[in-house]
Amino acid sequence: MSELRQDRTSGAWVIIAPGRERRPADWTVVSELDAVSSRDSGCPFCPGNEALLPSILEEMPSDASPGWRTRVVPNKFPALNSEAQGDCRDHGSFITANCYGHHEVIIENPGHDSDIPFLSDEEATAVTSCYRRRYLALMQDPQIESVLVFRNHGKAAGASLRHPHSQVVALGTVPPWVQSSEVWARERYDETGRCALCETLAYEMDDGRRIVHDGEWFVALVPFAAASPFELWLVPKRHQASFSTIGGDEQAELATLLRLALIRLRAALGDSPYNYVIDSASKNGGGTPHLHWRLRIVPYLVRPGGFELGAGLPINPSLPEEDAAILRGDEENQ
Amino acid sequence: MSELRQDRTSGAWVIIAPGRERRPADWTVVSELDAVSSRDSGCPFCPGNEALLPSILEEMPSDASPGWRTRVVPNKFPALNSEAQGDCRDHGSFITANCYGHHEVIIENPGHDSDIPFLSDEEATAVTSCYRRRYLALMQDPQIESVLVFRNHGKAAGASLRHPHSQVVALGTVPPWVQSSEVWARERYDETGRCALCETLAYEMDDGRRIVHDGEWFVALVPFAAASPFELWLVPKRHQASFSTIGGDEQAELATLLRLALIRLRAALGDSPYNYVIDSASKNGGGTPHLHWRLRIVPYLVRPGGFELGAGLPINPSLPEEDAAILRGDEENQ
Repeated sequence: MSELRQDRTSGAWVIIAPGRERRPADWTVVSELDAVSSRDSGCPFCPGNEALLPSILEEMPSDASPGWRTRVVPNKFPALNSEAQGDCRDHGSFITANCYGHHEVIIENPGHDSDIPFLSDEEATAVTSCYRRRYLALMQDPQIESVLVFRNHGKAAGASLRHPHSQVVALGTVPPWVQSSEVWARERYDETGRCALCETLAYEMDDGRRIVHDGEWFVALVPFAAASPFELWLVPKRHQASFSTIGGDEQAELATLLRLALIRLRAALGDSPYNYVIDSASKNGGGTPHLHWRLRIVPYLVRPGGFELGAGLPINPSLPEEDAAILRGDEENQ
Repeated sequence: MSELRQDRTSGAWVIIAPGRERRPADWTVVSELDAVSSRDSGCPFCPGNEALLPSILEEMPSDASPGWRTRVVPNKFPALNSEAQGDCRDHGSFITANCYGHHEVIIENPGHDSDIPFLSDEEATAVTSCYRRRYLALMQDPQIESVLVFRNHGKAAGASLRHPHSQVVALGTVPPWVQSSEVWARERYDETGRCALCETLAYEMDDGRRIVHDGEWFVALVPFAAASPFELWLVPKRHQASFSTIGGDEQAELATLLRLALIRLRAALGDSPYNYVIDSASKNGGGTPHLHWRLRIVPYLVRPGGFELGAGLPINPSLPEEDAAILRGDEENQ
């Protein structure tokens, strides 16, 4: 029996179609990373290959060799222009807009194979604190309206290099998904007087079926209207619109929980491709009572087709309640 | 230099980033169809294997063996429920809605390898006329609000069987993309007094750079704000909201032009995966002055990643003007 479900934090709908259900082993997309050699002398992110980098924007120093923990470099193929471009141009039916922005790559660790699940807590915290530093640094640019921190893992999920890395894009505009989510959250707040994600989190904690881990500062859960099998959100318990306002304890738990989430996904799905992104308030949304950031992990297991193109409606062939049980390890614990 | 472009027929934005441009040969997604055996005795869509089909809903008879041209069967794994399910249910933060609908498969031809580019004009017209018949038949159901006809080609684009087929989904609701496009078109109409697609078509014909083929009844063009490399629209010149209102001459030219478009794509990209969908008015939109149907072909060449997830903004690494020139065969003609 299929079900149309609505995500009350964004207004987005999804078809949950467990009648079409296939188990993880049946999904055809598998990570192609493992097919790549584990050490590439031509890897631009490995220590010693700095000549292959356009420049180094920031480095977190380390006492141990090679002298750094995380490194930030410009994306060689930026999606946005770092020179300002003027405003909306209207040529009759052809409208273009400002495409100003920055596009950076975060090299998460010197190790070519040091994917997040294999990092120490300290190394993982270096990654999330680098996310926060770049977020804050890029928001300083008065022309920037929105900053996205994201990670692509596996070729099918858009990763072109194996060496573990994340990306940061800062935009001179508020992009469509951020804008529509913020409008939705504002309308919900005006209606109910509550932050939609705080409200959803309370319902989820009460229901319990989709909770994967309940930490001190964060909850990991499979959302009620998950758009993909094994979609996982890391939600801060403390209401906060912007990712940049997390405290030190939160940062450490976020890193631990991110590792845990990726380890659980790996246990359930093998080294499958995924994307994650930090949904955080745009510049004018910081500090507001209706916005609440989260880290959203979306495994890339189901190939969208013509239906999704024409309907704008994802089909999730998996039941969020069952995915959460698998990620909790309910079977193993029985 | 990247550019943010807006599609004036839907309001959707896209980043055109030719600085990241790679040529067709560099795109990593290739169709996996060719790796499959060309004749599968277990193919449920091949003549003689009817025992593998749940049932046959409709057949277009033919004098030649095996006695049919096109066949319509239920989808074995329907995305929607054919039993009515009641209305919106609101369990606090958990909202579900009516997921009533039908999900059919159109077997386009008895031949296991008779993909559209290899059909005769008559065989191709049998396919588009079958699209129209099913569209009309499903719209007869008073509980249906919207009908989508689409095709997935290649495993990476969601096709699970090689035997050429299309799909039809009828929904008891107006799905998000249809709804937002219709609201946008209504607003444009109220503002300008013109249908947005008629207006765009006039601009495109005048500009000429993105026109691939100018027929008697249809124009094939790469849209100004193409969300993907080599996206192609087949647009009827005559203003009409619903695909179901095309006449006999239009139907024949649509089939010819669809073949031509897929042949041109194949010449440019090889047997790459793609999706196409007919964007047609929802039930209440038929006959309106602001809606205008089209067939939208979207090659699956670029893998979306965390940026697209967080921004809701596709990045097209290719310049629509150049894609159109390649599809026109400008180089060959020089």
